[in-house]
Parts: sequence; structure tokens; C-alpha cells
Amino acid sequence: VTEPVAQSRASKSSSRSGTAPKRRPQPGKKLKVGLIGFGTVGRSVAKLLTRDTHGRLVLTHICNRNIESKRVAGLPAHIKWTDSADELLSSDVDILVELIGGLEPAGEWIRRALRAGKSVVTANKLLISECGPELVKLARKMGQRIEFGASVGGGIPAIIGIQEGLAGDRLYKISGILNGTCNYILTKMEANGTSFAVALKEAQELGYAEADPTSDVEGFDSRAKLVILTQAGLRMQVRSDQIACRPISSIEAVDFVYARELNCTIRQISSAQRDNGDGTRLVAAVQPALIPLASLIAHVQGSENLVTATGEFAGRMVFSGFGAGGDPTAVAVVSDLHSIARSAGPPAAVLRAIAEIPASVGGEFTVPHYVRFVVNDRPGIIAELATVLSRYGISINAVLQKPGFPQSSLSFVMTLEPCDSSVLNRGLEEIARLDFHVRKPLCLPMFLE
Amino acid sequence: VTEPVAQSRASKSSSRSGTAPKRRPQPGKKLKVGLIGFGTVGRSVAKLLTRDTHGRLVLTHICNRNIESKRVAGLPAHIKWTDSADELLSSDVDILVELIGGLEPAGEWIRRALRAGKSVVTANKLLISECGPELVKLARKMGQRIEFGASVGGGIPAIIGIQEGLAGDRLYKISGILNGTCNYILTKMEANGTSFAVALKEAQELGYAEADPTSDVEGFDSRAKLVILTQAGLRMQVRSDQIACRPISSIEAVDFVYARELNCTIRQISSAQRDNGDGTRLVAAVQPALIPLASLIAHVQGSENLVTATGEFAGRMVFSGFGAGGDPTAVAVVSDLHSIARSAGPPAAVLRAIAEIPASVGGEFTVPHYVRFVVNDRPGIIAELATVLSRYGISINAVLQKPGFPQSSLSFVMTLEPCDSSVLNRGLEEIARLDFHVRKPLCLPMFLE
Repeated sequence: VTEPVAQSRASKSSSRSGTAPKRRPQPGKKLKVGLIGFGTVGRSVAKLLTRDTHGRLVLTHICNRNIESKRVAGLPAHIKWTDSADELLSSDVDILVELIGGLEPAGEWIRRALRAGKSVVTANKLLISECGPELVKLARKMGQRIEFGASVGGGIPAIIGIQEGLAGDRLYKISGILNGTCNYILTKMEANGTSFAVALKEAQELGYAEADPTSDVEGFDSRAKLVILTQAGLRMQVRSDQIACRPISSIEAVDFVYARELNCTIRQISSAQRDNGDGTRLVAAVQPALIPLASLIAHVQGSENLVTATGEFAGRMVFSGFGAGGDPTAVAVVSDLHSIARSAGPPAAVLRAIAEIPASVGGEFTVPHYVRFVVNDRPGIIAELATVLSRYGISINAVLQKPGFPQSSLSFVMTLEPCDSSVLNRGLEEIARLDFHVRKPLCLPMFLE
Repeated sequence: VTEPVAQSRASKSSSRSGTAPKRRPQPGKKLKVGLIGFGTVGRSVAKLLTRDTHGRLVLTHICNRNIESKRVAGLPAHIKWTDSADELLSSDVDILVELIGGLEPAGEWIRRALRAGKSVVTANKLLISECGPELVKLARKMGQRIEFGASVGGGIPAIIGIQEGLAGDRLYKISGILNGTCNYILTKMEANGTSFAVALKEAQELGYAEADPTSDVEGFDSRAKLVILTQAGLRMQVRSDQIACRPISSIEAVDFVYARELNCTIRQISSAQRDNGDGTRLVAAVQPALIPLASLIAHVQGSENLVTATGEFAGRMVFSGFGAGGDPTAVAVVSDLHSIARSAGPPAAVLRAIAEIPASVGGEFTVPHYVRFVVNDRPGIIAELATVLSRYGISINAVLQKPGFPQSSLSFVMTLEPCDSSVLNRGLEEIARLDFHVRKPLCLPMFLE
């Protein structure tokens, strides 16, 4: 990439048009759209944009590495196919659609586009979770728009629902199922009684999980989306590294058996809520948790996603649907393009505020907890556990034990009254040093509301 | 109301301001908001609008009959309280918020406001279901906006989610639970095994149902909302009188017992879907129906609402939350006000299209059906029913009969393979003439997808 050359081209283009960086598309004028990244989502976006030729949006450029191998039939002849991002960025396109993902070069291309007086639509959750507030600020400065509805929940209109549909409310909590791979694995474990490893393998064979599932299973994918929802919905500035993730790989088949005894099931839950007090503190985490079987969220099927937003006035609102896939994600991208096309006025006025309040972040939810022990059984274990817990001021709610386990590897569960998870974690560290454990105890929060 | 006087005042005001009917608020300028109708929702809107004094929206007028008895403390002193709609309509407010409901005088006041160069926000489902396309056309002609997000589903951002968040898709089906009263009654019947009459009485005592529950129970309230969603989402022009309603009062406690045998429950479902073919035909109805216990929609709690929108590309999206109540509805109203405030350009460009295609409407869903009979038992009944049904080409899927009914009033259920409900209805008319019925058979569609 020959950066200096590209920038000089961009500025030449700007001086030709004579209006950048404050270039504003005229109402009714066609808007030229350039696409960078022509994978599954990119092909769907091109299909959606070119099936409707009456609108204001015209796809003029498609850019991808090795573009000749990417050409597809059926798209209008006027489209310029290129493997040079510089060529697209220095062209007269009005809106850049960025679909390559990752921090760089996507971030640099988006910044160059905004500085050249173009608006931007992106599905890049990593970039927006890292640089969203900075990019929104740059867009506002340049009188342009940046929209990222496709970066969270694929086709689910969660960002627009939260930022526009609930603009009149003051939201204090965002939570949901933000990763379809984890939801698929956990629903399979629940339905078939299989182990995590077996369910993961099945998900990989069916294409629901990648060969390296780390980002999904550890919670990093969900966390990026939670950061974006927190910035857009709670308007709090938060970084990914401030939010704790716990993997779903610690869940075993027996946990679903005990969860069902408690009228619950287990899902990967991403949750962020404004703490009481001065409103700058956030409690947030991505982790497996128990949720009631009777709740809406327990009935999210397979790889679908669900986002809840709770406000002081409207209460809890739910958005659900297909959180990934080429066509659903393309619908979100094209809906953002339509939104830009509809707003004929100065775009800065339409830019929605995000991330106004820098947040301090903790991971301590004060909720009931589920703790599963696997022990080499002998008399006195419950008494020892109860003694340690009582020293930390934690009350036991119930002890569940299914029959049929061998004495040398006996699974049982304690449910605990609501307590601060950081206090409980210190208690569990002490408990982990006791001599009867066969495996490390598993502790899950119970989100019962 | 002295209509002629009011109109002359309005035109005087227009000539004074000198810019109507093409008056356009300047970007950044404060927008004056006038409220007509100061009931529960109106008070919540006033509270939300006046708690935030940094924004562009300023509440300047509150109008209600007998206004002196309606005054509440805590609102800014500059607000003008009046019982004259004429005074508000001839004032310099930029946006009228209409919350009185009903066709008239609300319709006339909204038309006058639009003609005087004001934008309008309304929660009036009856008016928008009857006159929505006409009012949107008038708003566009006058360069103004009319928003009605609060007319369906209270605080649930369904209209904006469908019109903006799914703008890139082509929707073909809208369905959901649009009436909280019916949902409350049916969930109570399900949970407690009570009769419709008992559940209705309880709902009335708790304020979830009105003294005259006709509009809710018969489905008229849901139908108005379904019309609006159909016009906004499927963009098909449809009138309320084209859509069949069936009351939930025909449901008995025993139907929940049989539904559970079928892994289903019963809810009032509003459903509209574009028929295959030339796309001008709609299949729509509001009726009690069987839905799977495992579905998201079966887990909508008490008086909550749920809207699903299914598109060719994004699949099925779900929006759920509190569908009524002062605060949730006020959030929808204020969110619409924010939307107007954000759009600084010519408002007509921001007006979303509705109801482009005039629709012919049928009520025949080709789905499996549940038919519950109450008979004076004798040998040969099943054979007689099967003979009639087979003459209409309808196949029986299963026959369910719970033990414990008296022979003289025996309830049993047949489930039928998918068939056109209009054909089935003709078969059931013939069946109704057989001599063994104690009550008229109850036929419900089964929406299993």
C-alpha cells in the first residue's frame, strides 16, 4: 500500500469536487456506494443493493484482494472491480462499506474515507469496540456519518432499536445472548446430554463453529459486541480489557441436569449494567450463567441471538433473530445505507451520541450462585463447605445431589443466597484448598430476573 | 369547539410566521412541542420531556378538556395550559403530540397541524389504522413528518425496527401478540386452569382489562395494530374491515389441557402474510391459535407484547416488551420526537413510505387445525366426523381424549393435517348439523413454525 500516493490522490479528488471535507450529498441525488471486502456478507450486500434500482443508492465499486477470482455474474456492468483500496478511497464514492474486519487496515481506510468527506457503514465489531467513539467523533468533525448496525447481532436491529426506538428512555442495563456458536453448543448439550467436546465437534462439522473456536468459546466475540452495545445504549465509554470473560468449556453435561432441577438452563450471557450511585460505574461480564427455563431468553433457538435493553421508563425490551450469516448481516448493512440516504440534511445532526461517560468497570453481580462440586466423598464435606462460606457471610440456599455417582467422583450442587461474586470468589479460593476435590468447583451466577 | 374561528386564527398565525406551509425548523434551533391529551401517557410524556433540558425539544403547551383540574406540579412555569385545541393549533409550536385517541376530533386536529406546517407525533392506533396512508401523504405534501411509533406495542420499538432497522430487507410476514389484556387472560387460564369468565374478572379487578372488554376480547384492538404493522412493514394498503377477528371468549379451560398434550399453548395471535403470487394478496386474521410451548412467543409474560417480522433475507426478527402503560408508551412518543429533532433537513425526505400496494385480503391460513368437540357420547361419532371430513379432502392427524368427562358432555379433540381454513369451515358447518353436539365445535389454527 503506497499510503502517501493514495492520500495525495484523495486530496486531489477532494479539491476537484471542491466541497470536501464538508461535502454533503444533495437530497434526491444518487449516492455512490463502494464496497471493500467481497466475502459472504459483501456478496449479499451487492445482491440487495442491485436488486432495487429505484432507490438513491448505487453500487459503483467493489474492492477485494485478488479481485479477478471474486467476480460474480449478474451484477451491473458499470460496477468497477478493483483490488486497490486506494483507488476506491480516492474515487467519488459517497459511502464506504467496510467488510474486511479486523483492526487494520480497516481502521486506516475508514479514517481516510471520513477525512475525504465520505460516510461509512461497517460490520466490524472488533474495530468499533476498540475505536467506536474516536471514529464517531471524527465523522462528526467531518460532517459525515458512520453506522455500525451490522457489528452486533447480524440482522437484528438492536443498535437502531436502542439508539432511536428507545431514545426517549434512559437505559441502565443491556444483556443477552450475543454469540450463536456458544448458544448452539449449549442448546445441543442441553437437548442431547452430550459433553462440551462432543457438542463443539458437531458444531464445527456443521459449520456453526470455526476450527479455532477460542474467540467464541472464551467469550471474546461476545465481549466486543457487549462493548458496542454498552457504548451505544448506556452511553458509557468502556474497553474490552475492562470486561471479564469466562469460557463455556467448563460446563459439563451434569450441570444441565442440576440446572433443570432448579427450573433453569445454562447459556452464555453477556451483561452490562450501570451501577447505582454516580452512574459512572458499570458491572459487566461475559460468562455461562443459569437462567430460568420459563424466560424468553431460554427459548432462543440454536444459533440465534437475543439482546435485551432495560430502561427506567419502558422496562425491558427484547430484540431477537438471526445474529449472523451473509443475508441477515447484509440486511443490517443495507438498512444503515438507507438510513444515510434518507437523511438529506447535515449528517452530523443525525449522528447519534455514543459513549459519553468514561466508566469504571467491575464484574461483581450480586445474585444467587450455583456451585457444582466433584468430590471424593467422605462424611463432613457439607459441614466444611458451610463453615468456610459462613465465614464470608454467605448463606446456603439448597444442596442438590442426584443419585448414581461413584463415591470417588461424586457431583453435587449448592445454591447460594445472593452475594457479591468477588466475596464468593475469595471464599471459593479457600474452599479449593480443601482435600476432597476431584475437580475444581464450578461457580455460575444465576440470573433469575 | 368553534371550528371557523379556530381556522381563521390558524391562518393568521401562518401568515404571521410567513413560512408555513413549508416551515422548516433550523438545525440546532429549539423545537416547540404542544401536547393534546393529558391523561396517563400525556403526563409521562411531559415528565420525560422536561427532565432533560439540554435537548432541542421544549414542551410549551399542554391542552386538555377541563385543564384546571389536570394541572400537575413540577413542570416548568413557561408551559401554557389550555383547554382550547384551537389555541394550541394556531400557536407557534413546531410539533403536535396527539394523545386523545379516537377518530375525531383527533384526525381533524392532526390535519390542521400538518397544513399549518407542524409535524405530528401520535399514539392513536384507531386513527392511523383508518387514515395512516392519507396522513402520511398529507405530511409529505406539506414537507412535515408524522410519526406513530407509540400506536403499536407501547414502548416496543417495532415500527422503527421494521421500517428502519429492516429497511434493507423485503418483509413478507408480520405476526405477534398485540393485545396485553388477551395475553394476560390466556396466561392466567393456562396457569390456574380457570375459565375465561374468571380470568377476565380477575384482569378487570387488577386493571388489566376494561369494564367493557369487547375491543380487546373480540380482537378489534389487535386488528388496528395489525393494520398499522401491515401498512408500515409489508407496505400493503389494508383496511380493518378486511381482516377477520375471532374472540378468545370461546376458549375453555379444557382447551389448555389438550393443547399441552400437543406440546402447545393458546394465545391470541395477530398474523398477516403476503400470499405467493403477484404480491397484492394478503392472508390475515386476529384469532386464538395453538402455538408451540417451546417457541419464544409462548413465553411472553402476562400483559407484555411481541411482534415478529419475517423477511426474505434476514429471516424472522422478534421485538418484545411492555406493549402498554403510561411510561413505556411515553418512551415511544418521546423517541419519535427525538427522531424528528435529529432530522434537520427537509423532513419529507425522512418520511418513510407506507402502504404502497392496495391489498386483497383473505383469512385462509393453510395450517394444521385443532378442533375440540363437546358431545353427548354414543358409538359412531368419530366415524361420522371422519366421513364428513374426508368428503372435504381433510385428513385427521390424531384424536385425543382425556379421561374423566361425563358421557353426556364429553370433550375430545381432533387435530387435522394442514388444510385451507375456508374449506374446513364448510366441513365444520356440515358437522355442526350432526345430532350429538352439546356445544358448537371450537376450531383453532395451529401455528407451529
